[in-house]
Amino acid sequence: MEKNSNICLFSETVKKENENENEEEEKLQPIEEFMFYKKIPSLLVPPLNFAMVSKGIYRSGFPNKKNFAFLKKLHLKSIMYLSSDEYFEENYQFMKENNIQFFQNKIEGNKEPFKEISIEDISNALIKVLDTRNLPMLIHCNKGRHRVGCLIGCLRKLQNFSMNSIFDEYRRFAGPKLQISDQEFIEIFPVNIKLNREYLPESFLKFEKPQF
Amino acid sequence: MEKNSNICLFSETVKKENENENEEEEKLQPIEEFMFYKKIPSLLVPPLNFAMVSKGIYRSGFPNKKNFAFLKKLHLKSIMYLSSDEYFEENYQFMKENNIQFFQNKIEGNKEPFKEISIEDISNALIKVLDTRNLPMLIHCNKGRHRVGCLIGCLRKLQNFSMNSIFDEYRRFAGPKLQISDQEFIEIFPVNIKLNREYLPESFLKFEKPQF
Repeated sequence: MEKNSNICLFSETVKKENENENEEEEKLQPIEEFMFYKKIPSLLVPPLNFAMVSKGIYRSGFPNKKNFAFLKKLHLKSIMYLSSDEYFEENYQFMKENNIQFFQNKIEGNKEPFKEISIEDISNALIKVLDTRNLPMLIHCNKGRHRVGCLIGCLRKLQNFSMNSIFDEYRRFAGPKLQISDQEFIEIFPVNIKLNREYLPESFLKFEKPQF
Repeated sequence: MEKNSNICLFSETVKKENENENEEEEKLQPIEEFMFYKKIPSLLVPPLNFAMVSKGIYRSGFPNKKNFAFLKKLHLKSIMYLSSDEYFEENYQFMKENNIQFFQNKIEGNKEPFKEISIEDISNALIKVLDTRNLPMLIHCNKGRHRVGCLIGCLRKLQNFSMNSIFDEYRRFAGPKLQISDQEFIEIFPVNIKLNREYLPESFLKFEKPQF
């Protein structure tokens, strides 16, 4: 009798909040697990500064364990990290489990006045991004502001977007941390990358520059 | 002589553009028009606060004539305007020419403390948005900040996004003009809209809440 009522009580408390752990509760582990699952049935946490750039192209800050359930839904074929920093073991594990290819483009961000982002690095990254064999792809740096912002700005130039709209998008993610040197880089970036037409994403074929 | 060399220069450039046209046609091309076309080849101006929300779903502020060339590239099936204001004649004309359906959802934005956005209005709008028969769709209000921000916030709830990421996205577009009442509305918005499963966009089927 006593035990029965205890069980009853327990499942009730768990429903509200499972805070007070005592010995008896530990014995009932399976219930707790189930309740926990019920409490957060399928809340999806996108990575910091996550957004869809174009069909099959996503941008964000550094994804961590909390974001894995969300990332699974994107059915990614590849992840690109724009930094020379070491990558996390659990992220490698996640990619392995989900058959995701990893590209690390060791891009140094703009740090005025001494460090400058390289046109070649961004071009090489764009060649991989604009290849349907690698899509869907998540491109990320650490905060999803500057390095990703530069890359996406250059990608928008390939789509012939106005500079005003490109800077606006850059600032939307960089916020008050915007770097004029990043915008300068985007503006001077030469749009003459050799892309493989066969694997060019459809939305880029549509935006293709007429040949004169 | 002078004149001849001029023509020569001109026909050479034209040949590159439309190779298959014969000489006589080339001569008939008015030089000035061609040069003008060359001067603004294909600069695309997205509307204010434009972004891709999900496959086939776009958001923005009020599109005007400058944005029409860009909008054409999206191959829109419909445009939704979230306001009771009158629509512009040239926008009607653009939609007619491009076979785009128009939805006007007369949503009143939040204006604290007297005016409140209505749950029913947003639900009705979402039912149209989450119907593949209407996609690709551009959803816009005037500045692309508040009314569209509320609608997209509610749409993200249907995708089970965390509130933190939803507010972050809302603020990215609202900037310093963010309205706490908008975020409040998104948070209390009940996720129990009846959607037609048959026409639900694929990316929403993926995010569908598991049934317990």
